[in-house]
Amino acid sequence: MAEIDPGRLLRDLRRLADFGRSGAGVSRPAYSEADLRAREWLCERLAEAGLDARVDGAGNVYGRAPGASRAILMGSHTDTVRAGGWLDGSLGVVCALEIARALGAPGARGEVGVDVVSFADEEGTWEPWFGSRCFCGELTPGAAAAARSGLGAALAALAGRPLARLEPGRHLAYLEAHIEQGPRLEAAGKTIGVVGAIVGIRDHRLEFAGRADHAGTTPMAERRDAGRALIEAAGRLLAGFERARGPETVWNLGRIALEPGEACVVPARAELLLEYRDPDEATLARFDELVRAEVAQANESGIACRLTTERSVPPVRLDAALASALRTAAEACRAGWLALSSGAGHDAAVLARHVPSAMMFVPSIAGRSHRCDEDTAEADLVLGARVALAWVEEVRAAAACGVGA
Amino acid sequence: MAEIDPGRLLRDLRRLADFGRSGAGVSRPAYSEADLRAREWLCERLAEAGLDARVDGAGNVYGRAPGASRAILMGSHTDTVRAGGWLDGSLGVVCALEIARALGAPGARGEVGVDVVSFADEEGTWEPWFGSRCFCGELTPGAAAAARSGLGAALAALAGRPLARLEPGRHLAYLEAHIEQGPRLEAAGKTIGVVGAIVGIRDHRLEFAGRADHAGTTPMAERRDAGRALIEAAGRLLAGFERARGPETVWNLGRIALEPGEACVVPARAELLLEYRDPDEATLARFDELVRAEVAQANESGIACRLTTERSVPPVRLDAALASALRTAAEACRAGWLALSSGAGHDAAVLARHVPSAMMFVPSIAGRSHRCDEDTAEADLVLGARVALAWVEEVRAAAACGVGA
Repeated sequence: MAEIDPGRLLRDLRRLADFGRSGAGVSRPAYSEADLRAREWLCERLAEAGLDARVDGAGNVYGRAPGASRAILMGSHTDTVRAGGWLDGSLGVVCALEIARALGAPGARGEVGVDVVSFADEEGTWEPWFGSRCFCGELTPGAAAAARSGLGAALAALAGRPLARLEPGRHLAYLEAHIEQGPRLEAAGKTIGVVGAIVGIRDHRLEFAGRADHAGTTPMAERRDAGRALIEAAGRLLAGFERARGPETVWNLGRIALEPGEACVVPARAELLLEYRDPDEATLARFDELVRAEVAQANESGIACRLTTERSVPPVRLDAALASALRTAAEACRAGWLALSSGAGHDAAVLARHVPSAMMFVPSIAGRSHRCDEDTAEADLVLGARVALAWVEEVRAAAACGVGA
Repeated sequence: MAEIDPGRLLRDLRRLADFGRSGAGVSRPAYSEADLRAREWLCERLAEAGLDARVDGAGNVYGRAPGASRAILMGSHTDTVRAGGWLDGSLGVVCALEIARALGAPGARGEVGVDVVSFADEEGTWEPWFGSRCFCGELTPGAAAAARSGLGAALAALAGRPLARLEPGRHLAYLEAHIEQGPRLEAAGKTIGVVGAIVGIRDHRLEFAGRADHAGTTPMAERRDAGRALIEAAGRLLAGFERARGPETVWNLGRIALEPGEACVVPARAELLLEYRDPDEATLARFDELVRAEVAQANESGIACRLTTERSVPPVRLDAALASALRTAAEACRAGWLALSSGAGHDAAVLARHVPSAMMFVPSIAGRSHRCDEDTAEADLVLGARVALAWVEEVRAAAACGVGA
């Protein structure tokens, strides 16, 4: 029976963290020299594991199981934010490498293989989820480079390489293992997060336009105070969000700016940046309605208010059968599991539009991520890889029942 | 009977505006070349009017009525903010000059004269109300120059000149005519503002300290959101101020800043600048209490909140008998009057601590001041000067009854 090699898993994770090491953390933005060297290193490891491995024209590293006509696709990304951590993305990629190694080459004809992928620029240094969108045919490097200045030059070293692509007849499922980037597993005392959905995101900018006046000599009733309109709207939104929320909704009023910003001048302009996330589109729609009501109320009260929606990402529901297999795998490994949503975006959200997909989380110590002290207990990293392996065996068995015999 | 000369009054106001003219407005910050030249020009006009005139060691221009043992002191200031208007301060000075000219030298022995003053640096380019505080003995140029870097150099041209001083045995009263700097006279259709009090002012800075967290992955209950604490406190303050206000209270939340200021990061720090003004200390104390309650509530909820009071100026009540004489004077001139408070600080607030003082406003077109389009209708400027002259005659008559015969 196939087994994870804990020493090899942790050694490869640590070796990968050497590329772009920056103090205690890692800086490996997409297409930086450190990122490209890490991709070459990974490509060699995948080839050693017996996969047909290459770096493609988008920067994706793709290791294809030879001799298999069907495969489970596993992976994540190896680029990082600037001054990021060592596990975000890397864990899912090295975990997939270790599982491909543990399983070895497919044996019997018709056996389901494991293909490994490390997508490029998941973090959006140039274009969010660039590699996975190219892999799924949603985008081409040429079209993206035409739209994003600098991306063409960043991709120059890869020019002429063919793109790796999702193969609908081959790829039965996608699994992405990832750190949670939040504190819920730790708080619940669980090791495995079974991700049911990846949240949808709305980012809005509200701009209120009033009139600057001397705050000492202008009677209150004569003011058109953009700051007051913002504060009152923000207060009602906070209260309304609390009432309209679902069990996993999060929201944030992250920026407020008043102009001219003097104690003795009534604010002429006020700006609010707000964001909310939820796995359920209906909850996002309720929040949207609350925001639109505030815009209308401000405009009716004589403070012109303009809403700009800067980002609107729909939620993605992951495959229920694959999630169920994750719970089974966790229980088989005696790992406590928790059903939750992902509050951050992932390549799996792109993949899920094209192939049945699953995501598995391991705990983040103190919920930290995107910083140099991002970490997970070694035992949790190893147990996570074991559960992922058990999941692969579960899904392979189901595929064999469904297709073979 | 003494009469204002409207042409002379307006001509002198326009001439004074030539010093430091800047587009449609005036830039004459304290001790700038334009300010010092304007002071020399004024000194010559006062001398022409028969006064003993000089520029003193603080930059105050002081014209003393010769032959009078008692006098009414009239004036204001001739410095401006940068890119200010032509009437703020200048009106009260030129009005006093015109009244001194209209009345001529005191005749009978014991007659009350008119002394004219233009205080230095009322606008606080170096030190707020610097000239009037020196005139009243609250401050010396040497002590102020030791505390404010640059002030000593600014005063160098005046070094060695003796200070003019308020003379308690001589000065019966102080009158400052000024533009309203607000819209209330215009809105009420009145020409003369009889100022009962000059507001007290509080400027506070509230700093909230929370913790930065990923706004997508950190559950709401686990956050220490400095921005949310600020928004909720600001909302309660706005509602509480509305309940605690007096008839003339004004308040302003003029600056809000959240850090780091990103849509997807829970604010770690939040800062609020707020100000309120009222002629009644009891109202200010109620507002103070509301602010302190918010600070306590934030601290109890785990968001450290620090209050810094950046300015605390007590309200000043002006002399009731002198205000009554202003109403009588306005009615004698068939000028509609309105009792109101001054929402801005003035030299009169300093003088009122030492001598019975009065302030009279004329309308500001659209309430504008401290900007190049600050203006007042010519007819209102002339009527204001007539009322001020009538007030002087009223006060002189009262003084004659009280002391002479």
